[in-house]
Amino acid sequence: MSGISRRKLFGLGAAGVAAAGAVGAGALAGRSLGGDSATVTSDESSASAPVPFYGAHQAGITTPAQDRLHFVALDVTTEKKAELVELLQEWTAAAARMTQGKDAGTFGAVGGDPEAPPDDTGEALGLPASGLTLTIGFGPSLFDKFELADRRPSSLADLPAFPGDALIPEISGGDICIQACAHDPQVAVHAIRNLARLGFGKVAVRYSQLGFGRTSSTSRAQATPRNLMGFKDGTANLKLEDTEMLREHLWAAPGDGPAWMDGGTYLVTRKIRMHIETWDRAPLSEQEAIFGRDKGVGAPLTGRDEFDEPDLAKTGSDGKPVIADDSHVRLAHPSLHGGARILRRGYNYVDGSDGLGRLDAGLFFMAYQRDPHKQFVPIQQALAAKDSLNEYIKHVSSGIFACPPGLADAGDYWGNSLFA
Amino acid sequence: MSGISRRKLFGLGAAGVAAAGAVGAGALAGRSLGGDSATVTSDESSASAPVPFYGAHQAGITTPAQDRLHFVALDVTTEKKAELVELLQEWTAAAARMTQGKDAGTFGAVGGDPEAPPDDTGEALGLPASGLTLTIGFGPSLFDKFELADRRPSSLADLPAFPGDALIPEISGGDICIQACAHDPQVAVHAIRNLARLGFGKVAVRYSQLGFGRTSSTSRAQATPRNLMGFKDGTANLKLEDTEMLREHLWAAPGDGPAWMDGGTYLVTRKIRMHIETWDRAPLSEQEAIFGRDKGVGAPLTGRDEFDEPDLAKTGSDGKPVIADDSHVRLAHPSLHGGARILRRGYNYVDGSDGLGRLDAGLFFMAYQRDPHKQFVPIQQALAAKDSLNEYIKHVSSGIFACPPGLADAGDYWGNSLFA
Repeated sequence: MSGISRRKLFGLGAAGVAAAGAVGAGALAGRSLGGDSATVTSDESSASAPVPFYGAHQAGITTPAQDRLHFVALDVTTEKKAELVELLQEWTAAAARMTQGKDAGTFGAVGGDPEAPPDDTGEALGLPASGLTLTIGFGPSLFDKFELADRRPSSLADLPAFPGDALIPEISGGDICIQACAHDPQVAVHAIRNLARLGFGKVAVRYSQLGFGRTSSTSRAQATPRNLMGFKDGTANLKLEDTEMLREHLWAAPGDGPAWMDGGTYLVTRKIRMHIETWDRAPLSEQEAIFGRDKGVGAPLTGRDEFDEPDLAKTGSDGKPVIADDSHVRLAHPSLHGGARILRRGYNYVDGSDGLGRLDAGLFFMAYQRDPHKQFVPIQQALAAKDSLNEYIKHVSSGIFACPPGLADAGDYWGNSLFA
Repeated sequence: MSGISRRKLFGLGAAGVAAAGAVGAGALAGRSLGGDSATVTSDESSASAPVPFYGAHQAGITTPAQDRLHFVALDVTTEKKAELVELLQEWTAAAARMTQGKDAGTFGAVGGDPEAPPDDTGEALGLPASGLTLTIGFGPSLFDKFELADRRPSSLADLPAFPGDALIPEISGGDICIQACAHDPQVAVHAIRNLARLGFGKVAVRYSQLGFGRTSSTSRAQATPRNLMGFKDGTANLKLEDTEMLREHLWAAPGDGPAWMDGGTYLVTRKIRMHIETWDRAPLSEQEAIFGRDKGVGAPLTGRDEFDEPDLAKTGSDGKPVIADDSHVRLAHPSLHGGARILRRGYNYVDGSDGLGRLDAGLFFMAYQRDPHKQFVPIQQALAAKDSLNEYIKHVSSGIFACPPGLADAGDYWGNSLFA
């Protein structure tokens, strides 16, 4: 350390501006090196532009699904409520900055103390906001701490055990979850890593999950993507434009539960490992019968186009239903669950291989809804009992979280409505 | 399966064309559903365009580094040389198709047998080529099989053990490696998964690694990106434009070793876990002293700009070198290793968390060179012995592979020069 001039450290502000400009060919103009001066230029494409942080609801729920995910579940390790509240305030300030393409802090160089750790880890310097959203949720276990039991919503009751569940406790649950979605994985990873860094000594990472290739559309402007089974799934997802249905199926309303959740929503996560190699050896006709859709265009087997409504009553010349009784599209259909709809926001994952010569891959399922016990639970009970897809999948992780409403302005913080 | 009409299956060709068009909003026109008719349209950006598959050298080495990686190491399980050669031929045909934005096969639907598994897994239907490159290499252990010992190049000798190595055998080595790089992870994952599928019964996945945020530039048109320590590293990387240096440092030449490797190159892989949380608590001045560079613009501590040549002789007012004796930039500098240069092509990785509250993250280092024992080995010996960065990293996996020259045309196949 002895040979370093402070001139270099103090001079970083000006040098940073020059460097940000020089990035040019590789990246759009992005966050500055010095902190507050980062602005979004007009030539940024929608994939690099920022998403507003403040609003009636948290961003990252109906926001058109970005392409990449870094999800983290944390356990609170401090026993002091004031420390947790202080962390939530620090997190909120950092999230407000990072989602707008700025550093978590002011990087620590300009006029800062070179003997202190930087207040941003630096790997996103020069990168644009990239559509980053950060969405927080509180798990059931949090309410066992800090005398919060009487504030726990009944909609946040633990999920029941489903037939076939093979849950691994170490990658399930969590006191707090944070979902980072962005178009650039480096930006999503940077955000979670810096929030975890801020939480040192107060929270610990319980598990974290990277995802790519969003498997759902949350806007009618987005095409339906494919999961790792090669199918379009979730065609009938709740979407940003469905204002009425979002009110009915997505957002917690006054009277639903404790007032601190009004305008919030509930997240269910399920990590669903796919037996990729077995699936890849199944005949096309069997794959299509299992999903109840054709693989090419994604049309229900009773239709021609992806968005054709499945005709669950139609029978073939053999008298059997064209869309089989144990097919995925039938069992998940709202008509079987009193019209229950959910907003799916899952991602494909590949976690390397499993030591047995197989890819460790599947779907990190995430779904938002007004009450999981009236929406996700009955749908999953039907699927777990009967879905012919079960032969090819295994649920290995599960989580449920209460995601509070959005923040009005910089005077507010994540969890304010819960802890105030 | 009984309710499925073959009309639907046979009709997929026409429907597929309609569907590819309908993708529109979400993705550029890409691979067709029916096989050969996929073409690259003129409005595709460079991030979605195809990279030529044939050439004197394999693509994916000097190709400007794409943003995403899926790397796989495979062990050959068949004992029949003819089966392995047949697989290499099938792989080559599939790689030639996939790199041009087509399916691995013809998807199996049009006039195919619905009772057979599809010959493409489908998750990349509708996606463009996305700059996909597929690069093959042969590991030392392959040469212990099929009576190939006398064809093993001396440059492919096993790497020595380095001080501090903490290698995990299960994620090291491998008979064959395939590097998939693309701008879309779904495309890279699809490619490796389909090659693994084709190899069922002949090879098994030993380990696989996803990466993002390329940590090296392989062209002067690319900005130097940042690793997960937040630093620009590898500024002095060999680049596409350095024709003379590539001849001297990258490509195996006649007389170097067995003729089958002429025009090939050698790949060294090292998975380097970073102790992210410890690093994040180190003072900025210490971080910069360790790298020998400033964190903001990436300049050596003796210079002002990223590409300023480090002045290794310069001393500060205290008489000590400005760039410390144990700094990373000094120890890796070509002047200490007889001018040895390598072409780095590494990627950041995050493999979730480690169960101890820490992110499992770091660098998947990959470097191509003419002879690892004259290039990577002496550099790594210097780093392993002395680099002050070692306090914050751990090498957990290692591999060395001989990557044969490129293929002339569709009559050639991966490994032809070795097995012929």
